[in-house]
Amino acid sequence: MKKIRLGIVGCGIAARTLHFPALKELSHLFEITAVTSRTRAHAEEFARMSGNPVVFDSYEELLDSGLVDAVDLAVPVDLNLPFIERALQKGVHVICEKPISTDVKTGKKIVALSRNSNKVVYIAENFRHASVFWKAKELIEAGKIGEVVYTSWQIWVGMDESNEYVRTDWRKEPKHVGGFLSDGGVHHAAALRLIFGEVEWVSAVAEDLSPHLGGMDFLSTLFEFENGIVGNYTVSYSLKGEDEFEVVGTKGKMFIFWDKIVLNDDVVAVPQEDSYQREFEDFYHVIVTGKPNNLGNPEEALKDLAFIEACVKSNGEKTFISEFLL
Amino acid sequence: MKKIRLGIVGCGIAARTLHFPALKELSHLFEITAVTSRTRAHAEEFARMSGNPVVFDSYEELLDSGLVDAVDLAVPVDLNLPFIERALQKGVHVICEKPISTDVKTGKKIVALSRNSNKVVYIAENFRHASVFWKAKELIEAGKIGEVVYTSWQIWVGMDESNEYVRTDWRKEPKHVGGFLSDGGVHHAAALRLIFGEVEWVSAVAEDLSPHLGGMDFLSTLFEFENGIVGNYTVSYSLKGEDEFEVVGTKGKMFIFWDKIVLNDDVVAVPQEDSYQREFEDFYHVIVTGKPNNLGNPEEALKDLAFIEACVKSNGEKTFISEFLL
Repeated sequence: MKKIRLGIVGCGIAARTLHFPALKELSHLFEITAVTSRTRAHAEEFARMSGNPVVFDSYEELLDSGLVDAVDLAVPVDLNLPFIERALQKGVHVICEKPISTDVKTGKKIVALSRNSNKVVYIAENFRHASVFWKAKELIEAGKIGEVVYTSWQIWVGMDESNEYVRTDWRKEPKHVGGFLSDGGVHHAAALRLIFGEVEWVSAVAEDLSPHLGGMDFLSTLFEFENGIVGNYTVSYSLKGEDEFEVVGTKGKMFIFWDKIVLNDDVVAVPQEDSYQREFEDFYHVIVTGKPNNLGNPEEALKDLAFIEACVKSNGEKTFISEFLL
Repeated sequence: MKKIRLGIVGCGIAARTLHFPALKELSHLFEITAVTSRTRAHAEEFARMSGNPVVFDSYEELLDSGLVDAVDLAVPVDLNLPFIERALQKGVHVICEKPISTDVKTGKKIVALSRNSNKVVYIAENFRHASVFWKAKELIEAGKIGEVVYTSWQIWVGMDESNEYVRTDWRKEPKHVGGFLSDGGVHHAAALRLIFGEVEWVSAVAEDLSPHLGGMDFLSTLFEFENGIVGNYTVSYSLKGEDEFEVVGTKGKMFIFWDKIVLNDDVVAVPQEDSYQREFEDFYHVIVTGKPNNLGNPEEALKDLAFIEACVKSNGEKTFISEFLL
């Protein structure tokens, strides 16, 4: 099977700790042939650990090198739009870290670029590749808790000033809407939408509580899906605690963890897989075998971001997600 | 010490199972001297178990008998206003079961009647007499979880068609706002207000999900207290489950149960007392010793109801509680 020649663009936390371990397991699908990073030393370090691809001083040079079929963008989120645009101009496929963009308005431009290109634009949202959410959906659709009435998701990320994400320059003064609220929140939106479908409206309070985290760091919401299921989603990126993801139906409840679902009184174990690895595999198949781009579709990523942007802008007002997507 | 001669008005579930056991323990403070009920047989049964007070065919006759200093109203909620009015006209003190009235508009008339009378109008809200909520408030004010950021209260009452409250005629076709949502909800509002202070606004979804329960039976909310604390309160009167009342602060968490508070990793036991007994004791002292009527004040009960009415009418819109109280 033909390998995709991949250029790594941005050698920050995501590329080093999330993408590279996945790509190492997928050396039959991808060959890392080129790398670039704002800080050349980071690119060189990445090159050393990844089989010595060519290190480029700039993204332009990498794109022009003829060495890459696709680029993996793991750059500050405000660069997603111009970097995707340039890749497509050069006829290069793109996989790009979530969130799709800093806000829905610029995210729509990425959707448009993707629609008008015959190259693949794949937004990497690993929660859409996490088995446990698909298992939850399957159990719900099998009627295991009756008709779903309500879901509650509380997330306590508990990052402090020593956290490497907190220390990232572009996260200290975020240009992306709500800062951590969108950076982390699009993951949660993706999981909620995967399991329950589209959110119709949200009412939310978004706050900047921690002085140590750039931008906002607390969000609490009430929302309703188009199918009438009601939910609360609350997240703090600074406070510590135990996460709880609960789904309540007319005939029972389930609690969703990463490795299991507690379904009424039973435990359903869910095998752990590397969601980043599954994501790159999917990207490969979308390019090579023409598999539909359902999971990395920029439109999906835009809907995730629209939910969060609606939360951030709600200020307690009932805010329809569709208004952001028009 | 002078005993208060008490007339029992309405011999339904509340009078029989909540008030009578408390009054039996308070025979040094109250003497049940008269009783009436829409169904005379119920009044006679109540009389037999409570030392044979005089049974009256009507509320008017009971008030005119000269046998009572105070009445205990446990009647369908739409009768609270006219029954309180008549008691005050006759110079008789009143203790009346929550909710104060069917809606805030008529509740305000009770507040006005109370203000213009030299007799006591005491709205019985036993949650304001429950030790555990006062203990939670004390621990929070002592800074045990730092600055409070968020509270989440999920309540699963789980009543089915055989439940005696569900079978009450006036609850089957409720005239009180939201049916069970206000009937049970004013308790929760009272506890939230006791611990955290006044709610500024709420956004909520109220639904009629169960065909077995009259009126609405599901509520999920997002709200903000005047002090900036954010909360979610979700209740279903039909679905079964385990209640969870959580308070999250900058330095820890607490979970509130009826008999204990789990404070970070410690368990703080809270002695159990009969909140109805404490309520009647308080009513006695307000009448006899001139203690301020803080806990049975109609204005407090009105604020509890205003929160619930705002929830019921919100339909996802940001709804300020003060608008209902103007």
